[in-house]
Amino acid sequence: MSFELRDRDLLGRIGRLRTKSGMVETPAFMPVINPILQAIPPKRMKQDFGANIVITNSYIIRKHFGDIPELEVHKLLDYDGVVTTDSGAYQILVYGGVEVTQEEIITFQKKIGSDIAVILDIPTGWDVPRETVEYTVNETLKRAKLALPLIEDTDNLWVGPVQGGKHLDLVAKSADRIGEMPYHIHALGSPTEVMERYMFPVLVDMTMTAKTHLPPDRPLHLFGAGHPMMFAMAVAMGCDLFDSAAYALYAKDERYMTNRGTSQLKDLEYFPCSCPVCRRHSINEVKEMMKGERRLLLTEHNLYVCMAEIDVVKQAIHEGNLWSLVETRARSHPQMMSALKTMAKYSEEFEMGTPSFKGRGLFYYDYNSLPRPQITRHIKSIRQNYGQPSNHSILILFPSPPVRPFTSYPPFQKLRQELSKTKSSNHTTCCFVAAPYGIVPEHLAETYPLSQYEIAEPFDHETIQFTVKNVVDYIQNTAYQTIILVSDDTSLNNHLNQTLEQEVIEVKKIHCDPWSTETTQKLIKILNE
Amino acid sequence: MSFELRDRDLLGRIGRLRTKSGMVETPAFMPVINPILQAIPPKRMKQDFGANIVITNSYIIRKHFGDIPELEVHKLLDYDGVVTTDSGAYQILVYGGVEVTQEEIITFQKKIGSDIAVILDIPTGWDVPRETVEYTVNETLKRAKLALPLIEDTDNLWVGPVQGGKHLDLVAKSADRIGEMPYHIHALGSPTEVMERYMFPVLVDMTMTAKTHLPPDRPLHLFGAGHPMMFAMAVAMGCDLFDSAAYALYAKDERYMTNRGTSQLKDLEYFPCSCPVCRRHSINEVKEMMKGERRLLLTEHNLYVCMAEIDVVKQAIHEGNLWSLVETRARSHPQMMSALKTMAKYSEEFEMGTPSFKGRGLFYYDYNSLPRPQITRHIKSIRQNYGQPSNHSILILFPSPPVRPFTSYPPFQKLRQELSKTKSSNHTTCCFVAAPYGIVPEHLAETYPLSQYEIAEPFDHETIQFTVKNVVDYIQNTAYQTIILVSDDTSLNNHLNQTLEQEVIEVKKIHCDPWSTETTQKLIKILNE
Repeated sequence: MSFELRDRDLLGRIGRLRTKSGMVETPAFMPVINPILQAIPPKRMKQDFGANIVITNSYIIRKHFGDIPELEVHKLLDYDGVVTTDSGAYQILVYGGVEVTQEEIITFQKKIGSDIAVILDIPTGWDVPRETVEYTVNETLKRAKLALPLIEDTDNLWVGPVQGGKHLDLVAKSADRIGEMPYHIHALGSPTEVMERYMFPVLVDMTMTAKTHLPPDRPLHLFGAGHPMMFAMAVAMGCDLFDSAAYALYAKDERYMTNRGTSQLKDLEYFPCSCPVCRRHSINEVKEMMKGERRLLLTEHNLYVCMAEIDVVKQAIHEGNLWSLVETRARSHPQMMSALKTMAKYSEEFEMGTPSFKGRGLFYYDYNSLPRPQITRHIKSIRQNYGQPSNHSILILFPSPPVRPFTSYPPFQKLRQELSKTKSSNHTTCCFVAAPYGIVPEHLAETYPLSQYEIAEPFDHETIQFTVKNVVDYIQNTAYQTIILVSDDTSLNNHLNQTLEQEVIEVKKIHCDPWSTETTQKLIKILNE
Repeated sequence: MSFELRDRDLLGRIGRLRTKSGMVETPAFMPVINPILQAIPPKRMKQDFGANIVITNSYIIRKHFGDIPELEVHKLLDYDGVVTTDSGAYQILVYGGVEVTQEEIITFQKKIGSDIAVILDIPTGWDVPRETVEYTVNETLKRAKLALPLIEDTDNLWVGPVQGGKHLDLVAKSADRIGEMPYHIHALGSPTEVMERYMFPVLVDMTMTAKTHLPPDRPLHLFGAGHPMMFAMAVAMGCDLFDSAAYALYAKDERYMTNRGTSQLKDLEYFPCSCPVCRRHSINEVKEMMKGERRLLLTEHNLYVCMAEIDVVKQAIHEGNLWSLVETRARSHPQMMSALKTMAKYSEEFEMGTPSFKGRGLFYYDYNSLPRPQITRHIKSIRQNYGQPSNHSILILFPSPPVRPFTSYPPFQKLRQELSKTKSSNHTTCCFVAAPYGIVPEHLAETYPLSQYEIAEPFDHETIQFTVKNVVDYIQNTAYQTIILVSDDTSLNNHLNQTLEQEVIEVKKIHCDPWSTETTQKLIKILNE
């Protein structure tokens, strides 16, 4: 197998997965195809909706078409893209068991030519006692091991599922163990009920635990995830593949998907969407259609929205702007917002997943933007690489000028020139106090992202607190003999002043217009002392 | 004229504006039609894009086709929808003057049969001295008055523009005066440069000032506003009509609009959009097209996105959920976020604009959700209508149970039953402390929105502060002899405790599991004292 990464942002990536039927670009949404009845024929899915990969169920195919001697799944579906087949594990979850052994269903998937195939794992399910969870984890691992001789030297790609539900220690164990086996792809099992109950914070912990315990070079499939409002978040956590029948099931119930949530068709007076279905039909026309016709249009709409959202996510990765997209989509439901807040604790992982920055201006909206990798990396870098320059004994803290880079601000340049004539100039470090970064050393002001960012004002309390903490950390980790704080009357400055007092850090304060000659003169006086 | 309001949310409304060529539903986006050259013929605009109203320029028509005797604007454009014509005022702004008098251009607009027509106002422009601003305001008012005899008894609808730029006192004066004249529609002039410079907070103040000083029963047109990312915000502030050539001008420059901002086509690797253009073409195909063909497709895309966003906004009004949409769209740029924060100071106006609530669950995301009218109204209503019930001397403050309505929580019901047996029961008021509302009196817990809301956790500092302030306000406005605080260990509770201490409000604290028998017993003991 080859899975080649083309681009990365947070833990999300654009990848190319080679299968025996061709290449698939990830992240990819795989519409679930019912092998018996298709609202939209798979061929049309590819042509009209750009679905180059679909998923169907080998267990159902075996039950209904198992007797056909030359059965081949692409021919059965009349589809020349990439076909994933599930094994019947979902049926175990729903019906409690299946009438097939793992060996039979593996052999069958090989026979029908699945491009991507799944072993017969035991889904954990929800609200089950810990012993049951342990059983599903251990049994899935046992089966994964037993399957190895059956799947080696095949041309299919094999999926090794992770179980454990909300028990994060078991998810970690499950991921560690299956990651050691030679599977091509991993999948996180049984999040469906977590998603249906809108327990997105739990989903964040489950996914992040699985992701950080699995080999990073293998694709991760989030089983049963099919709502466009959560694609960005799931991709940000490193999920590469999604599958769901929701686009069709929702349509059956007259439910209409958008990347901001779900509506009942009856509650809509307008189609809040730009897709071909919604631009071509008036809502009343659709409401008055025959049921079957309406269902087809809603299926098409839901599918357009899912496929488009994958492109929105990919473009955000390309721009290095996935966190902003996740912030935006978090407004689809308060539980999505809670999930965003849960994601904040994994900021280190997101920073490590982001190899390099695209150099675009950073957009900072509010404290929910704090976990952005650019900010995490700046804080880390100051802590690790930027101490007190040797021989420097004086630190001047300036407020941030209204232009970027800060050092291009003419009044600052003028002031700086004056200071350079003082006798302590060679022992003086100049830094700016800037939200959300904390300190911005003068000579780093022209580097990304300090040179190029936009921040919404007024700052909120969390942003101010974070900024002040980083300034105080810097002061406490260095040993300047004199610290001069050029104050303006912003709430950031006031909060900094207050915290410095609480921490008993002695500073000389200059409290007048920061860019006035008065400030310059006061600074010169101190530096000449 | 009739302008009938069908639905309202914040200051936004869905209206039906009757013109001589038929009815137009507002909010409406009017694509600017160049009378000389059209990328998309107006007829197709209506058929394929649902544009039932367009705007063109009577000054340019007069210049190029003025000699045609039977000139009629609908026939000239081959368009049977509603046609608005601008007067040449924009040309004054751009070129400094026009070769036409107001009388001539008014007469001309009447002659060519414009459905909606504009007087020849003097746009304020940007970065001009206050005296110039005063001149544009006064001159526009003078012309508006001089125009009156020319426009009375016509079948056109006449637009009376408001000028004043960023000088809010002049905007207010301009709006007050023109609002006294019998114009059918008002327009806010010259925001184009404010928008181009992303000075959205200024736009908020300008728009809110104009809106609150104009007659509310007349439609408000925001001149030159054509970016879908700002429609929701502008509608929330009471704008009903938008016009712009941006959809076409951006396409000429290979700029691609979305409701999250603008991209250069060259920076796109994927089409982050579900519109027919983006679903039907691959990005590489479009990049490799001949320039003219590509420009047409980008024009179509931009237009689809604008038209769809208007439907998104209308649906949000219908759902009573416009604030949530504005919060989401504020993530298109930090200056949009700053504008959202600026909007917060107008929460009273938004509350007054919202006649009734749709009874849907309220979604609270973070402190940016605080200005929602449901919250403003609750605070007002507690302050005005809910004092201390007579004979009640004891107040018990409970934390909020994990279900809605709070009173349906079985442990609370059990506890309440026990309390009702105590001798002080008839003198006791039970309230819940709930973010973001402050206090939720027991017997209001089943009313909207208290009965039905979702709030993201953990709460941020601003939300906690707002909540605590409302609790303290209630206590300070009443005169309970005994206040009992049932504490849990949440940060909301800790902050409340701290503030009560600061304000020297004496409370009895019960600090154990709020729903335990221990709490019940302690309460019973106090109530029996």
